[in-house]
Amino acid sequence: MDLSGIFAALTTPFDFAGSFSSADLKHNLHRYNQTDLAGYVVLGSTGESVLLSAKEMDAIFSTAIESAAPDKRLLAGTGAESTAETISRTKRAAELGYRAALVKTPYYYKPVYKPEVYLTHYRAVADASPIPILLYSVPQFTGVTLETPEILALAEHPNIIGMKDSSGVIQRIVEVVAGTPPTFQMLTGAASVIMPALSAGAVGGILALASAFPEKCVAIHQLYRQKMYDQARELQGKLSLASKKVVSECGIAGVKFVMDLRGYKGGVPRLPILPLSDSTKAAITKIAANLEPSAARA
Amino acid sequence: MDLSGIFAALTTPFDFAGSFSSADLKHNLHRYNQTDLAGYVVLGSTGESVLLSAKEMDAIFSTAIESAAPDKRLLAGTGAESTAETISRTKRAAELGYRAALVKTPYYYKPVYKPEVYLTHYRAVADASPIPILLYSVPQFTGVTLETPEILALAEHPNIIGMKDSSGVIQRIVEVVAGTPPTFQMLTGAASVIMPALSAGAVGGILALASAFPEKCVAIHQLYRQKMYDQARELQGKLSLASKKVVSECGIAGVKFVMDLRGYKGGVPRLPILPLSDSTKAAITKIAANLEPSAARA
Amino acid sequence: MDLSGIFAALTTPFDFAGSFSSADLKHNLHRYNQTDLAGYVVLGSTGESVLLSAKEMDAIFSTAIESAAPDKRLLAGTGAESTAETISRTKRAAELGYRAALVKTPYYYKPVYKPEVYLTHYRAVADASPIPILLYSVPQFTGVTLETPEILALAEHPNIIGMKDSSGVIQRIVEVVAGTPPTFQMLTGAASVIMPALSAGAVGGILALASAFPEKCVAIHQLYRQKMYDQARELQGKLSLASKKVVSECGIAGVKFVMDLRGYKGGVPRLPILPLSDSTKAAITKIAANLEPSAARA
Amino acid sequence: MDLSGIFAALTTPFDFAGSFSSADLKHNLHRYNQTDLAGYVVLGSTGESVLLSAKEMDAIFSTAIESAAPDKRLLAGTGAESTAETISRTKRAAELGYRAALVKTPYYYKPVYKPEVYLTHYRAVADASPIPILLYSVPQFTGVTLETPEILALAEHPNIIGMKDSSGVIQRIVEVVAGTPPTFQMLTGAASVIMPALSAGAVGGILALASAFPEKCVAIHQLYRQKMYDQARELQGKLSLASKKVVSECGIAGVKFVMDLRGYKGGVPRLPILPLSDSTKAAITKIAANLEPSAARA
Repeated sequence: MDLSGIFAALTTPFDFAGSFSSADLKHNLHRYNQTDLAGYVVLGSTGESVLLSAKEMDAIFSTAIESAAPDKRLLAGTGAESTAETISRTKRAAELGYRAALVKTPYYYKPVYKPEVYLTHYRAVADASPIPILLYSVPQFTGVTLETPEILALAEHPNIIGMKDSSGVIQRIVEVVAGTPPTFQMLTGAASVIMPALSAGAVGGILALASAFPEKCVAIHQLYRQKMYDQARELQGKLSLASKKVVSECGIAGVKFVMDLRGYKGGVPRLPILPLSDSTKAAITKIAANLEPSAARA
Repeated sequence: MDLSGIFAALTTPFDFAGSFSSADLKHNLHRYNQTDLAGYVVLGSTGESVLLSAKEMDAIFSTAIESAAPDKRLLAGTGAESTAETISRTKRAAELGYRAALVKTPYYYKPVYKPEVYLTHYRAVADASPIPILLYSVPQFTGVTLETPEILALAEHPNIIGMKDSSGVIQRIVEVVAGTPPTFQMLTGAASVIMPALSAGAVGGILALASAFPEKCVAIHQLYRQKMYDQARELQGKLSLASKKVVSECGIAGVKFVMDLRGYKGGVPRLPILPLSDSTKAAITKIAANLEPSAARA
Repeated sequence: MDLSGIFAALTTPFDFAGSFSSADLKHNLHRYNQTDLAGYVVLGSTGESVLLSAKEMDAIFSTAIESAAPDKRLLAGTGAESTAETISRTKRAAELGYRAALVKTPYYYKPVYKPEVYLTHYRAVADASPIPILLYSVPQFTGVTLETPEILALAEHPNIIGMKDSSGVIQRIVEVVAGTPPTFQMLTGAASVIMPALSAGAVGGILALASAFPEKCVAIHQLYRQKMYDQARELQGKLSLASKKVVSECGIAGVKFVMDLRGYKGGVPRLPILPLSDSTKAAITKIAANLEPSAARA
Repeated sequence: MDLSGIFAALTTPFDFAGSFSSADLKHNLHRYNQTDLAGYVVLGSTGESVLLSAKEMDAIFSTAIESAAPDKRLLAGTGAESTAETISRTKRAAELGYRAALVKTPYYYKPVYKPEVYLTHYRAVADASPIPILLYSVPQFTGVTLETPEILALAEHPNIIGMKDSSGVIQRIVEVVAGTPPTFQMLTGAASVIMPALSAGAVGGILALASAFPEKCVAIHQLYRQKMYDQARELQGKLSLASKKVVSECGIAGVKFVMDLRGYKGGVPRLPILPLSDSTKAAITKIAANLEPSAARA
């Protein structure tokens, strides 16, 4: 399974009553289907997965797979704190037709989660899963980091095909690429360093920012592939600025707001995530307009 | 509601098939009922709450309230990531007869969880809850800390009656006690500093270690109340040593193992938490024997 | 050597040209000599030691020892990054008449400073020193922490008689007191938790705040000794508030300003430490007046 | 002043008595002069600057400038905690013929070092300095980080011409390059991510590893310049492995040992830095042989 390219980390749209809006997700996917995105991650961190019920997750998984164009690769976010629940969600995603699962690290009992815990957990999931697994390390949310030695050990498992590293630490990409065969594919989760990640050997990225700016995120990958480095670096500078403000500082509320600016169905996140203040909206609007003039209409 | 004294943070026992064992929880509670524990916390961090299904949580809440002696005060752990789910769990606990709820902070989207998020979340829960609320800050697991300014602001809410602070930071207890009326009650979650916490103005503690050593944990509180400070300090030294090794280093697997040593139904935790190695078991057995000679029989 | 009681961590006063003012330091010491302070620490962190030349340090050491009343115990801050330089400074302090030295941890090359480094460093200094040594751990400045196992190992050295722990972590005091004979004396550096530190077994404190409020700092120690815990706790609440704002947030500039308010010779610190803004001065003035009405005159 | 290329961060060799060995430094420089290194940094962190006396620093500055080939650019490490002392050292370096100074951040009183402190400090140094200044951020040692907003503000000063960022955070390079004119030059201090740093817009690196492997460090820069990315990436993988073990884990003792392996005058560092254990030496020897077969002779 080729994971190269840019994947959008999908948001979960809610209707006025606060319920999942299947219609809005379809709207977004129909537009994304027109782009050169490699595919979608459903129910990752950007999808507010930790704020949803089991029933809602099922509905979202179903809607996404029905609405995605056949050429788009779909990754299901199935990581839960318990190993058994992670396996259960992964099997369900496979039944629904997902071709691979993105499994974030367990994290709550972090003081006792030594490397052995991650090895045991991921091997159990990969053994039980009918579909390939990608590791997912997202320390800004979980407070834990998958380090190179564990990653190299897990990369030997035949059903673990790659990793999304959202830490933004490029050294780890260098180390993992140097220590694994090309069949183990690294993806960055950090729009602020896509180009350096690619130069370090990553094959692509899974980006929240691609839910609002899919073309720009795809463009930097294409510029890099075409060895147009100066142009890639210039675009990277703009994407970094947008990513820092929208994704890092404002989180899902920021991503959804900038999606609204660009004509997608964003809306507001669930509590306890608060909606943006007016001054933050104004700052984001300005940054978005700088990146993509068509975003300035809002 | 008087929260003074020592509460045991209950563990969740599993049977050989890995399912919740109602019989084992009853066994433990019947023994705890004979002690001078002030009460129990059901489904806190020590109860593996993040590893359980909604159905299991309901069964545990029911078993505990049925088995607790009438003089024991019961606190329900009801914190979830989403505000709505937290309210739902709190209402359910109230229906089942719980008299107060312990609500841990949301934590996943921590980069955007500014103080305003915690104020909004806790006020929404406290407004909606039929029973009083205790704040719960446990940075070793969540990576977030409720700081003094937020605590002081939330202490003004009539339905927020206290806080469990598991950080072990005594300065915060000093600050909160100085800044709130005596009706706002502070409890420490750190067995390693109960006595300093009491001297700083805390009214008691909610302790995982009390699931294995209820008498010892109660004793330090009683010694302090009787102004027998030298004896309290000596016992504190031993409890700190045990708490550091068993609770901080080994976590729930450590607590459950030492419960087994003392004749309670401990067992093993759920994956991804790993069982203890033999060498760790030997080290804990030695520490337990030092604290409580009757634990040496294992 | 009895280290019990409250020591003032002395500041270094500068004249209008920015040079060390011997006259101002004498002025301060003559007033401190009238109090029940146990003694003084000369050239600790509060003394801006890292901003001074070797010649200035010598002048300050000399002035302090000449001006201190005979009943005040004097500790010399002699820690440098290099082991050899630390020994050299300690010998010089001994020559000048200092009775003990306070030696902060080396810290610059922290990634390679494993526990063995601290054991080797402190043993070399203690072996070479003609006067007893106190360990000094101040993680807020150095980024490194002396942990309990190293402290227990070093406490066995006959020329290491105690420790100043400025971390504010009370658990470590509990552990060290439990693991060492009474001849090893613990002092806290945190005015925000003096009373809990004493209840955990510390014998006293070395406090920057005592340079401005010696009587109040002494009073809490005396109240504790007289078992007047409720009064001690009430005073602790006020001292915590003052310590947090003045010492933790504003640092030496805050301490010096509040000394000026109370009639001591404070002045401004050396660059790069910036002087306080007017709004910060106003906030500190208010806090000082709350703690000590006589400070309100400024 | 063109800062592109690879600079060696020089070590300070000591003789058997532990004194600075001018002869050994000359030996090293005569060999480095034969390479394509862009130049040298004298008395940076790798030079054990915080362990040296003022007199030793002067001797090292003099020896280095006398022994460096005319085509090598020389940067003097002149950062001290105090602003005045930093200015004094910088002026002295200028007198001795240094063409630019590398000024690390002050760091001891970090809780009060707000961005304004760094702006004031660096502007004062740059105003007073007869030679251009480079900012130097090395959080692994100092515990403080120069962030993008401060860097962008300081880059406007006509006498601040660039920065060495040793954090290894590539995002900051992206941001600074996007926000400054090409006259402000970024250098990385992290041999583990040279190639990604170059792809992000850095002009070169100042590397401890270049004191032992100057040719390899130069080679990656040249491969990148010649757009031979696959070869550059492969070499980067090997350099990362060596850098992690030798520089990050073993520090100056590691760098000096591997210099010995390669025929330079390394030796041992000053206490409290400990010499390497035999097992660590064996591990480093293996890694060095993998990177540079000629290193295997030891």
